[in-house]
Amino acid sequence: MAAWGERLAGVRGVLLDISGVLYDSGEGGGVPIAGSVEAVARLKRSRLKVRFCTNESQKSRGHLVGLLRHLGYDISEGEVTAPAPAACLILRERGLRPHLLVHDGVRSEFAQVDTSNPNCVVIADAGESFSYQNMNKAFQVLMELENPVLISLGRGRYYKETSGLMLDVGAYTKALEYACGIKAEVVGKPSPEFFKSALQQMGVEAHQAQ
Amino acid sequence: MAAWGERLAGVRGVLLDISGVLYDSGEGGGVPIAGSVEAVARLKRSRLKVRFCTNESQKSRGHLVGLLRHLGYDISEGEVTAPAPAACLILRERGLRPHLLVHDGVRSEFAQVDTSNPNCVVIADAGESFSYQNMNKAFQVLMELENPVLISLGRGRYYKETSGLMLDVGAYTKALEYACGIKAEVVGKPSPEFFKSALQQMGVEAHQAQ
Repeated sequence: MAAWGERLAGVRGVLLDISGVLYDSGEGGGVPIAGSVEAVARLKRSRLKVRFCTNESQKSRGHLVGLLRHLGYDISEGEVTAPAPAACLILRERGLRPHLLVHDGVRSEFAQVDTSNPNCVVIADAGESFSYQNMNKAFQVLMELENPVLISLGRGRYYKETSGLMLDVGAYTKALEYACGIKAEVVGKPSPEFFKSALQQMGVEAHQAQ
Repeated sequence: MAAWGERLAGVRGVLLDISGVLYDSGEGGGVPIAGSVEAVARLKRSRLKVRFCTNESQKSRGHLVGLLRHLGYDISEGEVTAPAPAACLILRERGLRPHLLVHDGVRSEFAQVDTSNPNCVVIADAGESFSYQNMNKAFQVLMELENPVLISLGRGRYYKETSGLMLDVGAYTKALEYACGIKAEVVGKPSPEFFKSALQQMGVEAHQAQ
């Protein structure tokens, strides 16, 4: 405990991952990871600020928070930093109109975004929606652009579900990068901008966070 | 013509590609590329040996040849070097039992191969069969192997169909390579072994071929 006390000296806030840290997703909403419900509760009772920073891109924040609350976590939508809303900010700033290769569960996060006559592709963890037809459509949109822009919500290789390992968005992003000869822009971890935005939202400097 | 005569001096054999050279594939069997039916006929009337060397991995050689003959080409199955039969040789030599991520149209080429209790994955241009479920199954097979072996029939980025550009096997191979942290073995062009086997089958040395 002394080592931890030392390590936490000067720390004012904590960023927590969600998938694989708080819970394992899967059929029926997933299962909490042992001890994590109580750990979140203890952090929230402490003097530390707490924020959740996830690369979840298959569910909207509303859906994710509902699911976690059902599992017993004290968490609200405003406490979650996720790649879909971060991407929406970028799209607006740069006047980008995306073709969305995303799961239906996260589509609501893009409700305010103009998707007509697309001039970029946003790819997220689309799960079963990573059909050949959907991948090929995204590929064709990119190939028709003079300056193809591909925005990837995270670039995870795979994640663990209760039923086993599942391919994540990063694998499919690699496929499009290779086919089009381009490099995707990653929104989400491990991008430093993404962590910075989470810290800003928490009101904590990088050196004060764990 | 003088330049061509010079260039062909010492040439004894010609390797011809099929897709995008003889014909563009697509709905209804595809369409021949202008002048190519007659060009093949002229080559066959000449003193040159002719062989067809393709990365086609969605159709069996029998199916492909039937389709080309229907379009007017003078071609037989024994004149075609294709990655699926080349892969079968490798599988047999190395005692590999593949999980097949391939199109149903090419499955017959693997009829003599033991696919029980797989210890490798063979990936080909599976087209619509590149579903998330099928990709994930191949990924899980690889992740369960101590020494994951991924054999890719070609590594093309995309090809042209009459209806537009289509993602090729290379994109999906990249996805599995990235997810598993491995490097695939490529059977097919541009692998030198593949060209060499085509030349051997034609009975011509590399410096005598075009």
